[in-house]
Amino acid sequence: MNDRLSILNGPNLDMLGRREPHVYGRVILAEIEKRCRALARELGFALFFGQSNHEGQVVDWLHEAYDDGAAVVLNPAGLSTRSVAVLDALKMIEQPVVEVHLTNVFAREPVYHGDLVTARAADAFVAGFGATGYELGMHGVRALLDGQPP
Amino acid sequence: MNDRLSILNGPNLDMLGRREPHVYGRVILAEIEKRCRALARELGFALFFGQSNHEGQVVDWLHEAYDDGAAVVLNPAGLSTRSVAVLDALKMIEQPVVEVHLTNVFAREPVYHGDLVTARAADAFVAGFGATGYELGMHGVRALLDGQPP
Amino acid sequence: MNDRLSILNGPNLDMLGRREPHVYGRVILAEIEKRCRALARELGFALFFGQSNHEGQVVDWLHEAYDDGAAVVLNPAGLSTRSVAVLDALKMIEQPVVEVHLTNVFAREPVYHGDLVTARAADAFVAGFGATGYELGMHGVRALLDGQPP
Amino acid sequence: MNDRLSILNGPNLDMLGRREPHVYGRVILAEIEKRCRALARELGFALFFGQSNHEGQVVDWLHEAYDDGAAVVLNPAGLSTRSVAVLDALKMIEQPVVEVHLTNVFAREPVYHGDLVTARAADAFVAGFGATGYELGMHGVRALLDGQPP
Amino acid sequence: MNDRLSILNGPNLDMLGRREPHVYGRVILAEIEKRCRALARELGFALFFGQSNHEGQVVDWLHEAYDDGAAVVLNPAGLSTRSVAVLDALKMIEQPVVEVHLTNVFAREPVYHGDLVTARAADAFVAGFGATGYELGMHGVRALLDGQPP
Amino acid sequence: MNDRLSILNGPNLDMLGRREPHVYGRVILAEIEKRCRALARELGFALFFGQSNHEGQVVDWLHEAYDDGAAVVLNPAGLSTRSVAVLDALKMIEQPVVEVHLTNVFAREPVYHGDLVTARAADAFVAGFGATGYELGMHGVRALLDGQPP
Amino acid sequence: MNDRLSILNGPNLDMLGRREPHVYGRVILAEIEKRCRALARELGFALFFGQSNHEGQVVDWLHEAYDDGAAVVLNPAGLSTRSVAVLDALKMIEQPVVEVHLTNVFAREPVYHGDLVTARAADAFVAGFGATGYELGMHGVRALLDGQPP
Amino acid sequence: MNDRLSILNGPNLDMLGRREPHVYGRVILAEIEKRCRALARELGFALFFGQSNHEGQVVDWLHEAYDDGAAVVLNPAGLSTRSVAVLDALKMIEQPVVEVHLTNVFAREPVYHGDLVTARAADAFVAGFGATGYELGMHGVRALLDGQPP
Amino acid sequence: MNDRLSILNGPNLDMLGRREPHVYGRVILAEIEKRCRALARELGFALFFGQSNHEGQVVDWLHEAYDDGAAVVLNPAGLSTRSVAVLDALKMIEQPVVEVHLTNVFAREPVYHGDLVTARAADAFVAGFGATGYELGMHGVRALLDGQPP
Amino acid sequence: MNDRLSILNGPNLDMLGRREPHVYGRVILAEIEKRCRALARELGFALFFGQSNHEGQVVDWLHEAYDDGAAVVLNPAGLSTRSVAVLDALKMIEQPVVEVHLTNVFAREPVYHGDLVTARAADAFVAGFGATGYELGMHGVRALLDGQPP
Amino acid sequence: MNDRLSILNGPNLDMLGRREPHVYGRVILAEIEKRCRALARELGFALFFGQSNHEGQVVDWLHEAYDDGAAVVLNPAGLSTRSVAVLDALKMIEQPVVEVHLTNVFAREPVYHGDLVTARAADAFVAGFGATGYELGMHGVRALLDGQPP
Amino acid sequence: MNDRLSILNGPNLDMLGRREPHVYGRVILAEIEKRCRALARELGFALFFGQSNHEGQVVDWLHEAYDDGAAVVLNPAGLSTRSVAVLDALKMIEQPVVEVHLTNVFAREPVYHGDLVTARAADAFVAGFGATGYELGMHGVRALLDGQPP
Repeated sequence: MNDRLSILNGPNLDMLGRREPHVYGRVILAEIEKRCRALARELGFALFFGQSNHEGQVVDWLHEAYDDGAAVVLNPAGLSTRSVAVLDALKMIEQPVVEVHLTNVFAREPVYHGDLVTARAADAFVAGFGATGYELGMHGVRALLDGQPP
Repeated sequence: MNDRLSILNGPNLDMLGRREPHVYGRVILAEIEKRCRALARELGFALFFGQSNHEGQVVDWLHEAYDDGAAVVLNPAGLSTRSVAVLDALKMIEQPVVEVHLTNVFAREPVYHGDLVTARAADAFVAGFGATGYELGMHGVRALLDGQPP
Repeated sequence: MNDRLSILNGPNLDMLGRREPHVYGRVILAEIEKRCRALARELGFALFFGQSNHEGQVVDWLHEAYDDGAAVVLNPAGLSTRSVAVLDALKMIEQPVVEVHLTNVFAREPVYHGDLVTARAADAFVAGFGATGYELGMHGVRALLDGQPP
Repeated sequence: MNDRLSILNGPNLDMLGRREPHVYGRVILAEIEKRCRALARELGFALFFGQSNHEGQVVDWLHEAYDDGAAVVLNPAGLSTRSVAVLDALKMIEQPVVEVHLTNVFAREPVYHGDLVTARAADAFVAGFGATGYELGMHGVRALLDGQPP
Repeated sequence: MNDRLSILNGPNLDMLGRREPHVYGRVILAEIEKRCRALARELGFALFFGQSNHEGQVVDWLHEAYDDGAAVVLNPAGLSTRSVAVLDALKMIEQPVVEVHLTNVFAREPVYHGDLVTARAADAFVAGFGATGYELGMHGVRALLDGQPP
Repeated sequence: MNDRLSILNGPNLDMLGRREPHVYGRVILAEIEKRCRALARELGFALFFGQSNHEGQVVDWLHEAYDDGAAVVLNPAGLSTRSVAVLDALKMIEQPVVEVHLTNVFAREPVYHGDLVTARAADAFVAGFGATGYELGMHGVRALLDGQPP
Repeated sequence: MNDRLSILNGPNLDMLGRREPHVYGRVILAEIEKRCRALARELGFALFFGQSNHEGQVVDWLHEAYDDGAAVVLNPAGLSTRSVAVLDALKMIEQPVVEVHLTNVFAREPVYHGDLVTARAADAFVAGFGATGYELGMHGVRALLDGQPP
Repeated sequence: MNDRLSILNGPNLDMLGRREPHVYGRVILAEIEKRCRALARELGFALFFGQSNHEGQVVDWLHEAYDDGAAVVLNPAGLSTRSVAVLDALKMIEQPVVEVHLTNVFAREPVYHGDLVTARAADAFVAGFGATGYELGMHGVRALLDGQPP
Repeated sequence: MNDRLSILNGPNLDMLGRREPHVYGRVILAEIEKRCRALARELGFALFFGQSNHEGQVVDWLHEAYDDGAAVVLNPAGLSTRSVAVLDALKMIEQPVVEVHLTNVFAREPVYHGDLVTARAADAFVAGFGATGYELGMHGVRALLDGQPP
Repeated sequence: MNDRLSILNGPNLDMLGRREPHVYGRVILAEIEKRCRALARELGFALFFGQSNHEGQVVDWLHEAYDDGAAVVLNPAGLSTRSVAVLDALKMIEQPVVEVHLTNVFAREPVYHGDLVTARAADAFVAGFGATGYELGMHGVRALLDGQPP
Repeated sequence: MNDRLSILNGPNLDMLGRREPHVYGRVILAEIEKRCRALARELGFALFFGQSNHEGQVVDWLHEAYDDGAAVVLNPAGLSTRSVAVLDALKMIEQPVVEVHLTNVFAREPVYHGDLVTARAADAFVAGFGATGYELGMHGVRALLDGQPP
Repeated sequence: MNDRLSILNGPNLDMLGRREPHVYGRVILAEIEKRCRALARELGFALFFGQSNHEGQVVDWLHEAYDDGAAVVLNPAGLSTRSVAVLDALKMIEQPVVEVHLTNVFAREPVYHGDLVTARAADAFVAGFGATGYELGMHGVRALLDGQPP
């Protein structure tokens, strides 16, 4: 039986590919989802993939992940330095949680990394690989679940 | 012909496996090196793997990486929030630079993530996967070199 | 005729009892609602009881409370140090407003009490009594409404 | 053919006229909308006028503005010092963006102007003229679109 | 046999009723003591009620509370943002400790809530109900002692 | 009889058009004055228009505005984050005061918006419309004087 | 009939003349008291003159001053940047309150002037005249009481 | 032969009596000058009395005071928290320097007392006595000159 | 003839042995006093040993130490980051002053070491050796008095 | 034909030689001007040399330097950490700008180097060589103009 | 068999006796080593004594101390407020660690005590006794090893 | 006989010419050394010229400079905002010390000038002239040694 995995995407990621392409690249979210679905099959994950511009929806999905015993790959986007609600929801999750960012936030303005609120409740953090970061995050979840000795 | 890759490790990483194992795990650096060498062969990297407790040595190795046109996977350890010298050395590197941390530094005391000085000059950042993070970082370098669309 | 009272709950409180029980206890929100409804009858309140993970919904309910002339007992949860929208909505309320927290936020990390934004527009504040805090808050509203000399 | 213009209003602006009238005045939002619609006809704008207490809805409308090539007049209200999600959405907009506030926020508490997050991605900023500020903002958009020499 | 309870009052509370009545109301401390004594009988508390303008006296009384196994309701007044001595004394107390403030300190100047030093060692916190807050605090102590499920 | 209006310009605005034209545009101050004089006639203002590099001169002109019962449109330029002297002078003015900036200062370095000292004593604030901002400010003054319902 | 005046001195002022004479001079407190008593007769004050190293005693004396309708000249010494208890006691005083310091605290280390807590509740402030400052403070109280036009 | 004394007044003090009279009172500067001239005769001072809205003029006058060996009573007004130029000029003065403020700046907004730059180079400081403060400052200068034992 | 030595203990040290024994150990103050008295005989000190929960009493004892020409070993406990009164009293002492803490305060929360106010006026500082620290402090005083070359 | 060079001096530099000579030395400004004029002839500069205590005058001279295409050596003195007006004027200058300070400001109080506002718009910075610093600055301008390879 | 003890000295301590003798005294490091060796024999320690100006060397020696099960007396000198590398190395040490400073760093500039990074991982801290501090530290290590009841 | 001069270069300066040439220019360190050696002959200096990426080596060289009575020109590069070890070593030097930077650090990110630690112990500071800055620094040392009146 497959492990469950929720890949969740925060505000503005629906506009990927069109949103500041010099910063975020030209891959659209549907393409990322396709690549994640392919890799999920390979790694044995039952995948939920969602995006919302509403913090409340992200929190709801995290509750569902908790109910399902799912691991989480979360790109919180604009919520990452702000949302205590997402932080609190992440704290409940017992399966591995990986926070993913498309860009290396540390090379950007402080508003994007000054206080990484949600990352405190993650197990791991990946930033700067663009869409590939989702795949690396999924491999990382796989390793964490398999208890691969660190 | 292989791409060159320098995997560099900062202070105290020679003590891995014995150093606060409840925090850093029990894998020793030689084992990490072995896993990295195996993966390097697979990914087509000519690998240099070094560790030093001296900031100056890390800077020297980065200069060599620059001279060799090597990509870099750097675990700066205690230098990450402190060293402008390493920051300046990283800025020269034209190949991909990935900063790796064994732990999710954002879940630790501020002295480990308050001001991530060296990460500003990295292309990407991986934290919290333990030794697996080196392998994810190497895959990430591969993708960045191959111009895999982000 | 009864006074109106809105008891509003912010993000993640729907998971009470399952969410970090070592921190928040094992009482679920439905049980708290039951206790509040019983006390509301005793104290003569027409009660609305709501929970949402959406800041916007909490704001909407506060507007309804304003329209109904209702007093408010609000557990803003993760919104308490963040939401200027809730702060602004509370400022309109002319009836007593009591902010309630399950835990003593001052004994927790700064992210939970560093800047209590919404509390500035409350009349009173109760924290650390777990579910009992809702009942104390309701008694407090009763006293404030009755003009019991402070 | 008309230029498109989206006038977007954030949390609590639906309560205008009743919300702290000593601060925000007694004009209601429907009246502002009416005045804006009249002026839009005069200035040649196809107008969308919306209000929401949900940050996510404001982000959605900004995406639509982007899709429509619309200019934006935004009163972010309580989101202005908080929302990185709105900041990111604004950054995509290529047409003029004007941030409008009813009050002179600089004469108020720091929570209303300490860190004007969304204003960084605006082209212009108008505050303190009450409802008239929307009209001035619209005139300003007109001038920016017409390339009137500054 | 009764549980012991110490209700302790810090500097200037002896002037209650005359001290800035627009802020603190017109009830005098003797009246509060009378109401607390009545409620103590009802709730089964052997009550000590004291007030001092001397930090050292408050510390002494907390030591006595520790020796007596008493719960504590403390209004630290001007000591709340300042006194590490009271903080340290509170840390010893094994019975419930409730900090009470007459006013909602979060709606006042930062000097009254910027750094709530003593509250870190309390179990619970009540503010803004005027004299009624003492009674709510006593009910809260009762609930904490009775292990009423939170 | 006309209302009086003083349009005052702080340091370096005499160099407009030549001063960093990529930032401030190529319109010179004489052109702005011409456009303001035209609009003043239209709106019924008796206009004083001045520019000085001396803080003291700006203060003197504000005193004259006070003596004349004039409204003020002020572009404080480099004085806006610094001058308590101008702040104090503005506080005396009983007629509407509008602070105007050519650029959207919030999109620039903190030295241009970190602490908007003079804006605290303004009624309204316009930034980012270039020279058009003066005209919008004048329309705004007109509306404020006419008691146009906000 | 005389006006009442309380001249109160905080910690370490009993050691005046011997305490760091290069900083505080060589006049002892008894001499200052003598000069104050002489001037009190001249200005028509019934004088209380006290010194204590106990914050609580200073608060008690301020309560007595309140009860007596006395004006206050207070040298809070080491309490000036610390004591919220004294701040709160001063707020009750309806007669003039003058805070006096022997030295110009602004020319000393920040611990002596960084946050002048008690001065917020004073009417006036005198520093740097040594013992003469008490006399100037008394003259100032006289002028404030006499409603001498400022 | 008389001692020389310069009484210097910074920005906006020319408007005294008309400038925010609820804050600064209704005495005009000419009346203060008259009272100072009368007292100067009594205390044996050859008096210069000046006011300017220009920081540079205040600096020039301080240079003249230095040349004349004059003591200084300075009300820096809006320059007090800002002007390093005045600070530097004051540092040269070898005769007593007293900084005078009409209001108790510590009871006002931080912009009026957050960083008292010029006061660091004064010998003494008087605030809150209105116009009487000038007279107290002059008496203080007299005492400092006469070597009256502090 | 013996040198005089005052060993002074601040708030809550009377509860040693019972106060948070996991932090402060189980030795009671009387035992520490006994060990200090034994060592005082050995080192030739006439010993005063005192404890008080009152800052004012600690200041009084420091004045007595000054009068007696005594060296001081001070454990300020909760006063160490707060008391300017103790700082000022210590500044008078001409004999060696050693500040002692039972715990290594630097490994604890910032409230215990963020601003070591009293330590500025000490000659030396010992922390983390528990009760043994008093004995080390006494040996240190002996060495400082004997002019043992550092 | 000579290059043009403006050497500009800010507040209090007219008092050089007499102003705190232990800090600034005993050379007077006329002597510095003489040395600069001699060196200007040698280096081929048409020299303007000015000093003013008025920020506005310094700004005016910078405008003239801009008009003349002159390089600038500026000793801003007390304006260096304060003046945005001078910063803005410097930004226009296209020729080399060197900021000179007589003292090593980094070894002095923070008010002299905490935020070097004007230096941001300089090309180079010289401090601590006394009057010689002007000459070094002139040589530096020469080298920058001659495109001497750095 | 003896316990092992490493006494390690950071940058510039090789210059002791010549380095700012008014601050650090005139004893040279060889003399300190001699005194430490004598005391080591007395206390039963097998002693390693080292000094280096290289952070990396200090880290290496701490690794050896860990391997040898040695206790540590460390004078980190200029590394104490900076080195996360030394902090991390100290965290591994299971034997007692005492940080020693020659001077009372709390009486010096903030750069010497503002953030005592390495002290967080020490068991105890001694400062201000000059060379004698090493001996007190060794006695302290002895007591900690002997489990002398604190 | 010649004066001795040590020109010392910190981390990454060995890569000059290749390291971010758009920032640091294309001159290599060997060329700078050659120019410095030529000028040393002219100015009568016996020159030591060194570069190291190791802080410890820079400290060692400063100790040698102290032993040799050499003046110092130091480009600390990445150590300038970090190294207390270099600060302490510089404090010993009795001959002139000039800190040189290739770029105007004040126009760069705060990490390059936020806290210029080593500059506090320098006599003078030169920045922004590229390689020419070394020559200006050497001329400055010459002037300081020759006691040329500042």
